[in-house]
Amino acid sequence: MNDFRLIKTCSKARAGELTTPHGVVLTPVLCPVGTQGSVKTLVPQEIKELGMRMILANTYHLYLRPGIPTIEKLGGLHKFMGWNGAILTDSGGYQLFSLSRLCQVSDDGVIFRSHIDGSQHTITPELAIHYQESLGADITMVLDECIAHDERRERVWAAMVRTHQWAERCLKSHKRQRQALYAIVQGGIFPDLRKQSAEFLTSLKFDGYAIGGLSIGEPKSVTFDITEQTAALLPSDKPRYLMGVGSPEDVVECVARGIDIFDCALPTRVARNGALYTRKGRVDIENAVFSQQETPIDTDCCCYTCQNFSAAYLHHLFRSKELLAYRLATIHNLAFMSSLVKSIRSAILNGTFDKFRQEFLSAYQPTDEQTRISQKQKWLETRQKESQD
Amino acid sequence: MNDFRLIKTCSKARAGELTTPHGVVLTPVLCPVGTQGSVKTLVPQEIKELGMRMILANTYHLYLRPGIPTIEKLGGLHKFMGWNGAILTDSGGYQLFSLSRLCQVSDDGVIFRSHIDGSQHTITPELAIHYQESLGADITMVLDECIAHDERRERVWAAMVRTHQWAERCLKSHKRQRQALYAIVQGGIFPDLRKQSAEFLTSLKFDGYAIGGLSIGEPKSVTFDITEQTAALLPSDKPRYLMGVGSPEDVVECVARGIDIFDCALPTRVARNGALYTRKGRVDIENAVFSQQETPIDTDCCCYTCQNFSAAYLHHLFRSKELLAYRLATIHNLAFMSSLVKSIRSAILNGTFDKFRQEFLSAYQPTDEQTRISQKQKWLETRQKESQD
Repeated sequence: MNDFRLIKTCSKARAGELTTPHGVVLTPVLCPVGTQGSVKTLVPQEIKELGMRMILANTYHLYLRPGIPTIEKLGGLHKFMGWNGAILTDSGGYQLFSLSRLCQVSDDGVIFRSHIDGSQHTITPELAIHYQESLGADITMVLDECIAHDERRERVWAAMVRTHQWAERCLKSHKRQRQALYAIVQGGIFPDLRKQSAEFLTSLKFDGYAIGGLSIGEPKSVTFDITEQTAALLPSDKPRYLMGVGSPEDVVECVARGIDIFDCALPTRVARNGALYTRKGRVDIENAVFSQQETPIDTDCCCYTCQNFSAAYLHHLFRSKELLAYRLATIHNLAFMSSLVKSIRSAILNGTFDKFRQEFLSAYQPTDEQTRISQKQKWLETRQKESQD
Repeated sequence: MNDFRLIKTCSKARAGELTTPHGVVLTPVLCPVGTQGSVKTLVPQEIKELGMRMILANTYHLYLRPGIPTIEKLGGLHKFMGWNGAILTDSGGYQLFSLSRLCQVSDDGVIFRSHIDGSQHTITPELAIHYQESLGADITMVLDECIAHDERRERVWAAMVRTHQWAERCLKSHKRQRQALYAIVQGGIFPDLRKQSAEFLTSLKFDGYAIGGLSIGEPKSVTFDITEQTAALLPSDKPRYLMGVGSPEDVVECVARGIDIFDCALPTRVARNGALYTRKGRVDIENAVFSQQETPIDTDCCCYTCQNFSAAYLHHLFRSKELLAYRLATIHNLAFMSSLVKSIRSAILNGTFDKFRQEFLSAYQPTDEQTRISQKQKWLETRQKESQD
């Protein structure tokens, strides 16, 4: 039920087909993020209409609230949230590192405090698998130990070794074969550690391979280099998943380096901050330049938002902090990503991906560092209000 | 273009048909509130699918942001917000009193400071009409002087006299006859002043008559008594509009007293606080009792929310502060109000309204005062975050 079929390659870029218990997912694919069992502001029908066939949900968040037994009792995550497409769950490794207060990480597992109420919990590799299986995820992930991008080598090495031990335990406790289990390659920014990690994990029988611990603060050239080197070490007949990436430009660049699956909160999160994607780059809809614009944000865009509303109206909704603003912006950014990924796939199938990549990147102005930082700041300020993803 | 046809009465309750430049509106009708040109969380298509044919928008808010000239330039309010049903605009009288910082109220008009940025503005009866006509409203309202419910009689009298003078000036400056103009009866809680106001205003040629200055803190029995007495003084061939009411029970009670049109932020506002309407009364979806409920909030409800999601999922979304919560709750409450008003109309047409009223009110538990106050408090706390309506 979890077959991956590589259909075509174009240089290193790959077009494939991933069969899951909840339908076929064409790759490359970007999974929108439904951290707490909801892709923020949207109903499942809209997500499907946006062309999305797989979403990401978060074991850490769902474990804390409403609790795994509740979701299981209510028929599993698909039924609970009314989504009949595929669901990929992360194990919680990254949230344990970024959100919770860690009490103790040992070979056995992690003792942590909830970011919601401070209560103490324990997670082990076995429990991480058990929780994801109980949720009914189509693709589950091993528990990994995440650390900061600028840790020294010995620390990175130790976390990698622990991630390997945990991966073996996850594989052993993985019972429901309908649900795929992916390993996570770690090793930070050290090519030799990445190689060691990829070799170890590919010697075990996982359904797919993720690259973890990237895009967490390191320079972008490093992200790209490590992605390229690591992807090259992974078996060509298994899906490759780059965790937590990406922006439009990063998706194009990392498809070019051999990645099949992406998940990222960026398109939906920046949407709620008024940053909308266009072929020329991100625009800030709150900018006064849009206050009188009768045409939509992007006249070439077929999304519901652009087909029905002027940029001026969106500008007004954002300035007025109307809740509809966040929904219309989310629709637009996901439609942009959906269309981008579809174009990428067509280009790979047509053997014209290199040309597509070049044209896309020459038109698309990447977000400058300052905007990136100020929007990250804005997000940090609102994350308490909105709940994280 | 703004004809009202009274089709049937049942005791004092009336069923009618209001023809506007943007379609026929069956009465009784409750207008959802789109204060700033958006019924919070919903797109126009959804509002229509909920059976709504007329919404209320707010001249005061739209004047301050994005500004009347902007909306006019963009083709008027209908085009701006993508709504092709009818729009009723209030003149801003109530918001001047409740939101802005009043600087000076004189016979000429009102000088006030914006609640957004403190900037100073002037509004006169003539400008209030001009703004509403520029917005392209189907029904416009005279500028009235609003005061607190517990003002002494002389003050109420003076505001009423000024409201009358302003009404005459509004009528004189009312140019676009396709757009209806309604007067607002004032006079506080004093039956003789209400009588004086109704007599004066009905001696002028308005398209409809509103009852203002109620449901702003006075006891509910007073709201009902004044509504009944005032409605009885209004011409039977013109629509009667009770401003700022109401809750499900208030709508039933005031239809029984001869009201045709209602507008109220309550159904949408309480929805965003997790208070959902059922035939038995309002329930608080955040209550632990819903945490495991597999069935929807209301098993008899045909709304999108109840047809697709369990109460447990809604409970989870609210507890997690997911933005989708507010949208799904808004849909449910508006569907409830839409269905209620439809049932009321059927009962009037069938001559069974008195029975309907009795049955509805015996099943529906009105919200107790304490819940009302604590939810008002919750709303006040969030109003800065969300922007007012």
